[in-house]
Amino acid sequence: MKSRAAVAWEAGKPLSIEEIDVAGPRAGEVLVRIVATGVCHTDAFTLSGDDPEGMFPVVLGHEGGGVVEEVGEGVTTLKPGDHVIPLYTPECGECKFCLSGKTNLCQKIRVTQGKGLMPDGTSRFSMGGKPLLHYMGTSTFSEYTVVPEISLAKINKEAPLDKVCLLGCGVTTGIGAVLNTAKVEPGASVAVFGLGGIGLSVVQGAVMAKAGRIVVVDTNPSKFEMAKMLGATDCVNPRDYPDTPIQQVIVDLTDGGVDYSFECIGSVDVMRAALECCHKGWGESIIIGVAGAGQEIRTRPFQLVTGRVWRGSAFGGVKGRSQLPGYVERYMGGEIKIDPMITYTMGLEDINKAFDLMHEGKSIRSVIVY
Amino acid sequence: MKSRAAVAWEAGKPLSIEEIDVAGPRAGEVLVRIVATGVCHTDAFTLSGDDPEGMFPVVLGHEGGGVVEEVGEGVTTLKPGDHVIPLYTPECGECKFCLSGKTNLCQKIRVTQGKGLMPDGTSRFSMGGKPLLHYMGTSTFSEYTVVPEISLAKINKEAPLDKVCLLGCGVTTGIGAVLNTAKVEPGASVAVFGLGGIGLSVVQGAVMAKAGRIVVVDTNPSKFEMAKMLGATDCVNPRDYPDTPIQQVIVDLTDGGVDYSFECIGSVDVMRAALECCHKGWGESIIIGVAGAGQEIRTRPFQLVTGRVWRGSAFGGVKGRSQLPGYVERYMGGEIKIDPMITYTMGLEDINKAFDLMHEGKSIRSVIVY
Repeated sequence: MKSRAAVAWEAGKPLSIEEIDVAGPRAGEVLVRIVATGVCHTDAFTLSGDDPEGMFPVVLGHEGGGVVEEVGEGVTTLKPGDHVIPLYTPECGECKFCLSGKTNLCQKIRVTQGKGLMPDGTSRFSMGGKPLLHYMGTSTFSEYTVVPEISLAKINKEAPLDKVCLLGCGVTTGIGAVLNTAKVEPGASVAVFGLGGIGLSVVQGAVMAKAGRIVVVDTNPSKFEMAKMLGATDCVNPRDYPDTPIQQVIVDLTDGGVDYSFECIGSVDVMRAALECCHKGWGESIIIGVAGAGQEIRTRPFQLVTGRVWRGSAFGGVKGRSQLPGYVERYMGGEIKIDPMITYTMGLEDINKAFDLMHEGKSIRSVIVY
Repeated sequence: MKSRAAVAWEAGKPLSIEEIDVAGPRAGEVLVRIVATGVCHTDAFTLSGDDPEGMFPVVLGHEGGGVVEEVGEGVTTLKPGDHVIPLYTPECGECKFCLSGKTNLCQKIRVTQGKGLMPDGTSRFSMGGKPLLHYMGTSTFSEYTVVPEISLAKINKEAPLDKVCLLGCGVTTGIGAVLNTAKVEPGASVAVFGLGGIGLSVVQGAVMAKAGRIVVVDTNPSKFEMAKMLGATDCVNPRDYPDTPIQQVIVDLTDGGVDYSFECIGSVDVMRAALECCHKGWGESIIIGVAGAGQEIRTRPFQLVTGRVWRGSAFGGVKGRSQLPGYVERYMGGEIKIDPMITYTMGLEDINKAFDLMHEGKSIRSVIVY
């Protein structure tokens, strides 16, 4: 079948709106009509060419919401008409990782997904007979996409797909990092570095966890209003303290450091500051941001020996198929706020504008509606 | 009073056996007659001059066992004749850290202890009228030493002090890192880097935690026999794999990496290897070793984002006054083995030989008996 799609032909170039060919779902696969998709920094990172694992030509996009159109052989848990969120972190329920009870990082289809291919090692996308690659197992920048059954969370049909699509990445990543990875307890103090979609979602998660103090840190003070609206208690602009390392500023502000910190930028220097602003004896820092290729974090080991803990979080530690439907319900119940995060809504033809707005710091999230 | 002591007059020089003056205990202090003391790498580190916080002249030693001789004003929990282990990590029970329930790093007397002084800012040691500094709040290289009440664990009088003195540092640090910091669960896989007194104690702790596999790593294969005797299941000499990073060797050996790893050397490169040999999704690495001044650990943040956790441990996370007496009981009951760790026992006059044997890798621990 034909599908409108934004194709990334090569690194560093704008996306091209094309009519591509999408093959039907094979065994264990599902054809999904994407209704809406967010545009995330990770898409921009791959498009820029800085992602060492990026490959082209490719159909990007990983923050979508859609409707099942057709299921392949053997698919039992989904049927046409079901509403779904594609998952870049699948949940097969049977690999060593899924069975461990300790992680959401299902590895069942990791190798092929990393190569931009479906689990059978081929692509469903092509144009003029030449194959296009999949991306993160989701490729939500095509109106019709093919996704493995294990990479789809079935959600409440009442949920607006042009909002809950953001639960496919940013919002869930931020909230889950607080609730699943850090397990922030009531009354705890929290520092959030970077107020993009992830950082603002961390603020939300901290509110849900009943954190006592939520310190947000960003060099763009125009982000502070939204952060406060969502529940931030203290806003810190590092540029206001040119002579003091930001970790020291936060240690001073919080009587020795915060109980939990979250890095939501992808800067290895900020990751260090986030660790070092944690309280001696028990502070835990969670890395969420994705650093550039080859970059390394560093600190003195004394920081850890004196009780700080360094962790990371991917998709907020959330198991997509079993836990994401609950996040949709919490949105429906008003507990999770998504609407304020959507700065712009636009058609697929304007998707390059969505990237520009993100790079200019003018949007938290733009949502593309097909 | 007069006391025999090994004095470190300056960095890099052997200790001198001297007769020093020890003043009586002031309020909140206790005079202890040390019966035996271990010689630990940390003493050697300070003596070498590499410790940026080292100060001279000083009475070193922090792994002792002794008997209370006299108590100062206001001391209520100890009386003459009590058997005690001095604690370089005190437990006041009332500071923010002690009350947190999250750490053993009592900070009540940190500042003065770090300066080599008693909590009132003065020293009880002198020679010819010139003051000598205390060390780690313990100074067990003097037959008579003065220690704050909060820095003494009262133990079973039946316990042989020339053995349980090692619970004052190395043995407790290793076992506690497994049981308190990592909380290793039955069946888990463990890697231990470095087979000195700490590393061998980690092996013991892993056995106590019923770990399923205990991989030990050392470049000195003469250490493997003892490690196996204590419970190690696999011995790896990195020199046998000149072309493969040791983390890869262990990942291959353990089907994807270990559940827990422990760095017991103090090398920042080994700390990195210890983290990176952990299993994706859940592996946790615990830094125990003390790195040289200014050295930094580093890794790609992806290691943490994909589920590994980096921690540290000091004195095994053990709260000395409330938990160390239980460790002594576990030794008395045969669960904790100390005797095989004691390679040599000697008098104070031979203490420099104990340092030499340690530097030459010929001893796990030497115990000085007064």
